[in-house]
Amino acid sequence: MWQLYHFPLCPFSRKVQLALSEKKVPFSLQLVYPWDAPEGYEQLNPALKTPALHHPERGIKLADSQAICEYFEETESKSPLIPGSAAARAEVRRLVALFDDVLYADVTAPLLHEKMKKRLVLRQSPDSQVLRSTMRLTHEHLDYIDWLIDTRRWLAGAQLSLADFAAAAQLSVIDYLGGIDWADHRQAHGWYRVIKSRPSFAPLLKQKMEGLPAPRHYADVNA
Amino acid sequence: MWQLYHFPLCPFSRKVQLALSEKKVPFSLQLVYPWDAPEGYEQLNPALKTPALHHPERGIKLADSQAICEYFEETESKSPLIPGSAAARAEVRRLVALFDDVLYADVTAPLLHEKMKKRLVLRQSPDSQVLRSTMRLTHEHLDYIDWLIDTRRWLAGAQLSLADFAAAAQLSVIDYLGGIDWADHRQAHGWYRVIKSRPSFAPLLKQKMEGLPAPRHYADVNA
Repeated sequence: MWQLYHFPLCPFSRKVQLALSEKKVPFSLQLVYPWDAPEGYEQLNPALKTPALHHPERGIKLADSQAICEYFEETESKSPLIPGSAAARAEVRRLVALFDDVLYADVTAPLLHEKMKKRLVLRQSPDSQVLRSTMRLTHEHLDYIDWLIDTRRWLAGAQLSLADFAAAAQLSVIDYLGGIDWADHRQAHGWYRVIKSRPSFAPLLKQKMEGLPAPRHYADVNA
Repeated sequence: MWQLYHFPLCPFSRKVQLALSEKKVPFSLQLVYPWDAPEGYEQLNPALKTPALHHPERGIKLADSQAICEYFEETESKSPLIPGSAAARAEVRRLVALFDDVLYADVTAPLLHEKMKKRLVLRQSPDSQVLRSTMRLTHEHLDYIDWLIDTRRWLAGAQLSLADFAAAAQLSVIDYLGGIDWADHRQAHGWYRVIKSRPSFAPLLKQKMEGLPAPRHYADVNA
């Protein structure tokens, strides 16, 4: 069976979990903190990041969330997550990169640093100026999602795709860290509630980061 | 014809130029500085980054270097750049992400900030501590490339692939900015000279960033 090396608040591991669950690929979870990775982890992912995926029986090692998702898109025909024409697939991938790179760099990464790493590893207080900046940037990203949902059924077009799961993976971590205010984002909020209600999402809502409790609304699919 | 929006020292635009040239897809270059993008550029790439690719006659807009490369991998059968089995393709994509994300964040991005943006936009001097750190990290990345070339013909395996072009795109920008010392990296240097001698690379060696001359060895394919 596939073993997914992850930690509960890694947005890229969440994206892979969603993709594997949607495609009904069985996997087990292996906890690893990239900042305290056990010896030998670089054999699984030389970048020393999460996620990494290992199939010991078949001797396959995969790393990088997008490389992993593309691998299963090629090997599992069930529930295509990068559907449509070449241009439609390019639009899915453009949005995945927007959420994986820009939303992550603007919001998820600084929030993880301020609210998770400072609390659990560095024993420091969060910087309120950084928190305010992530709040402002979260609104800009939610404005863009509002606009997409105003003009399309799902984020990348008429079909549910990896773009929806990549965005929801980042937003679920931001939400866990108390970084989302849905006021003025009716469309994005409605879309997120639909994604959050999918069976593939349920395990994520139960995963807790030790020492860092989630806000009460986090696991409520109606919130 | 395709129009590629780029600036001369954007490593991701360089990666796309190399991929398009290898696949013999004709394109013209359109200069755009992301920090001073003209009004309307967000229509081509809402992330306001380079590269973006536009085909006005066909009404196709593509953004994000990897989404662009995957698009041409799907639509142009010539010179496959993500070749082989699903596992081999995953290895190409893992390495592309390693160079696009980690090498870029460790070295290319801070060097561009210190040596290009501070000189041309902010009118400040580079921070020597940051320059020393990028030098050290460049050596770590070159050590990894040495190791890959010790065990494989090309970076991702037996075949030339997008991993080679993604790495060379980053390294060519680092080299332009004077950030590479090839001493102790015989294997990586030999591999880079081979890539640098390909016809697809020649246009990159002629592209100059206004106000920021390249070191003399930069365009010498034997250096």
